[in-house]
Amino acid sequence: MSPTSQDRFDWVTLTSDYGVAGVFVGVCKGAIAQVAPQVRFLDVCHLIAAQDIEHAASTLGAAAPYLPVAVHLALVDPMHVPPSRGVVVHTADGSLLVGPDNGVLCRAIDELGGAVDAAEAANPELWRDTVHPTFRGRDVFAPIAGHLANGTAMAEVGPQIDPATLTVLADREVEVDHDHVHGEVAVVDHFGNLSLNIVRSDLEAAGISFGDMVEIRCNGRSAHIPFAATYAEVPRGRLAVCEDAFHAVMLAVNAGDASRELRVQRGDPVVISRLPQIPVRAGAQRIGIAP
Amino acid sequence: MSPTSQDRFDWVTLTSDYGVAGVFVGVCKGAIAQVAPQVRFLDVCHLIAAQDIEHAASTLGAAAPYLPVAVHLALVDPMHVPPSRGVVVHTADGSLLVGPDNGVLCRAIDELGGAVDAAEAANPELWRDTVHPTFRGRDVFAPIAGHLANGTAMAEVGPQIDPATLTVLADREVEVDHDHVHGEVAVVDHFGNLSLNIVRSDLEAAGISFGDMVEIRCNGRSAHIPFAATYAEVPRGRLAVCEDAFHAVMLAVNAGDASRELRVQRGDPVVISRLPQIPVRAGAQRIGIAP
Amino acid sequence: MSPTSQDRFDWVTLTSDYGVAGVFVGVCKGAIAQVAPQVRFLDVCHLIAAQDIEHAASTLGAAAPYLPVAVHLALVDPMHVPPSRGVVVHTADGSLLVGPDNGVLCRAIDELGGAVDAAEAANPELWRDTVHPTFRGRDVFAPIAGHLANGTAMAEVGPQIDPATLTVLADREVEVDHDHVHGEVAVVDHFGNLSLNIVRSDLEAAGISFGDMVEIRCNGRSAHIPFAATYAEVPRGRLAVCEDAFHAVMLAVNAGDASRELRVQRGDPVVISRLPQIPVRAGAQRIGIAP
Repeated sequence: MSPTSQDRFDWVTLTSDYGVAGVFVGVCKGAIAQVAPQVRFLDVCHLIAAQDIEHAASTLGAAAPYLPVAVHLALVDPMHVPPSRGVVVHTADGSLLVGPDNGVLCRAIDELGGAVDAAEAANPELWRDTVHPTFRGRDVFAPIAGHLANGTAMAEVGPQIDPATLTVLADREVEVDHDHVHGEVAVVDHFGNLSLNIVRSDLEAAGISFGDMVEIRCNGRSAHIPFAATYAEVPRGRLAVCEDAFHAVMLAVNAGDASRELRVQRGDPVVISRLPQIPVRAGAQRIGIAP
Repeated sequence: MSPTSQDRFDWVTLTSDYGVAGVFVGVCKGAIAQVAPQVRFLDVCHLIAAQDIEHAASTLGAAAPYLPVAVHLALVDPMHVPPSRGVVVHTADGSLLVGPDNGVLCRAIDELGGAVDAAEAANPELWRDTVHPTFRGRDVFAPIAGHLANGTAMAEVGPQIDPATLTVLADREVEVDHDHVHGEVAVVDHFGNLSLNIVRSDLEAAGISFGDMVEIRCNGRSAHIPFAATYAEVPRGRLAVCEDAFHAVMLAVNAGDASRELRVQRGDPVVISRLPQIPVRAGAQRIGIAP
Repeated sequence: MSPTSQDRFDWVTLTSDYGVAGVFVGVCKGAIAQVAPQVRFLDVCHLIAAQDIEHAASTLGAAAPYLPVAVHLALVDPMHVPPSRGVVVHTADGSLLVGPDNGVLCRAIDELGGAVDAAEAANPELWRDTVHPTFRGRDVFAPIAGHLANGTAMAEVGPQIDPATLTVLADREVEVDHDHVHGEVAVVDHFGNLSLNIVRSDLEAAGISFGDMVEIRCNGRSAHIPFAATYAEVPRGRLAVCEDAFHAVMLAVNAGDASRELRVQRGDPVVISRLPQIPVRAGAQRIGIAP
């Protein structure tokens, strides 16, 4: 099931915590292009929180269904997190994922149909001549990606490993407590929308359906707002609970910035509670943000 | 006049308010590359102010003369701004512009020689299977761009529409009041230069020519400075009114940061006034920034 | 030794102080792609400190060994820094460097094996029809890069010049004073690691070797810390002096952010001193950050 030496890849995607201010991303692309000058690069995200494996795994997992079949590099590789073996994983869609075996690949593997083969990055002939211990992205993973894009067989990378031994991160912990769901802010996007680590089925487990009013609590404040299909269903400037474009539950202000309004950030806790769905009386429900 | 199915495009350019921190840009590129793996991407700008159609339109319009013939995607698509139809516009230079018909394309259409044909994005066969209502960029416009790059005819996108019905933004309002010009800061660049929504002919209408001294007022302060061809004509650290590289009037400090010196930002008002062009006497004119 | 008209380049790399918020980078790429639509772009860095030639030169020099053979554009071109001639430099690895002759190219020239030929950018037939005096990047250097990528001979760019006349920046000044090394912070990376303008041989000249304890002083504070091969050799949360992945001496906190801990930024002075390498007694050495 592994790619043979006939398989070549046009695209190499990159996900990292390298930031955009320095040369880390550029030199990794350069190290790939030195090996495989014909590739094209697709930047998924380089502003993963520093050394945050879970953030990287969920980001690459969310993006994976929208990426071309490619060599996907995941370069979040904290020195203090064992195990340190590097791996290449062949997924059912035909892609090859390359990175440290610290869990950073696990969500994307699931999204791409599961691992059908894997190899350990053990053959230094595919690496740069000198490997700096804190920059395997440039010196080990980038040149491997280049060789794989060129059609080098996985067997050249190193010994085959059982995909069942790949590191898998624990599932996100969302507490559904009778009619409450306890989650946290997972992503704050460029518009200030707050995507949570909660999905619609978590709300449904608490008895909350589209159209229901809910109470949200975060940052010491509370608000009674609707659970709508999109924020466009509430008036401008009003807050809604809805579903984002990646199947996560989101807090958003129509034509506004929920992060600024609620003063919450990535990692802050949010509780969403079912409200009694009684007929609306004057004063019984407030829509919008509590003062 | 429309591209036939023989026309293919090497380049897809992208302009958006998606920011650089998340995966929005990456997944749009991925959705294009899934359809058209042979394309090359050129990022015009992804830090358009959130949901700011005028900012996007003027940015893409300013860049358009310097871009290759391409499929140009403009992804600023606020839910609260009707009309919501998506469009493809064929311009006289041979490019295809893709985006919502909310005005975001209008400046680039002008710069590229005008619209010679247009179609409404109405054929869901070119879209992703599932369309999220708040992410048409990824689910509608990106795959359309991919198909157009592949040579799909505009007639496949949807029914032909009259280019005269495309949304056009109102012209910028610059008040020229005898010897005053009232404008505002349109762009603050990486050097702190302040490009205004004023062009040289506005100053000329107020009797101001290259070489004249002018008074500028902004942020409660005023300064008497020259209207120079470039900021390099004033001493280091001094402020000048000049013309930027995109034909806009600009405030700039030679070897300095006008935004920091003047403490003004995008959107702040600026008034430029003609000064009596009398021979300079001691004390009669101050050059530089008023305290 | 110069490229003949048969030599073409797949890759154009870009290094600039243009930032990522505006269209400056995008229009330069566009101006290249209008001339050479077949090229691929590789962004080295666009957040060079504004008009900072030394920063640009050291950044491009650090990245150069990891880049493919290419046309390398260096677009840091302050108006107030003579001389203003533009140049193309052919280096021993086969690359062509393009930019102003203000020193921005000198480190990369060294890293790429030295200059084997050079030409002055004097032939306006290769430029855009109109050249804005403050945006030679777009109007002069970008189209030249495109033509060179297409295989245009250096002789078409302008008259040959003696590489010995190219501007070379002064070597960095590191004061090694008996058992002290005085340097400064050259780069703060996305993780908060602080790379200095010091290399290992500077420390060795002060009698400091791997494994030694040193005293660092910066921002009014001091700390006794080890000089380790990598920060991974000290416990989590502890500070180390080590070597970064580009051969510079670095201050780093294992699994932490040295810039935040020490409250220092690019340009801040740092002194590293040899400590008497006596056997450790209780209280004689403190590891970590002084309060």
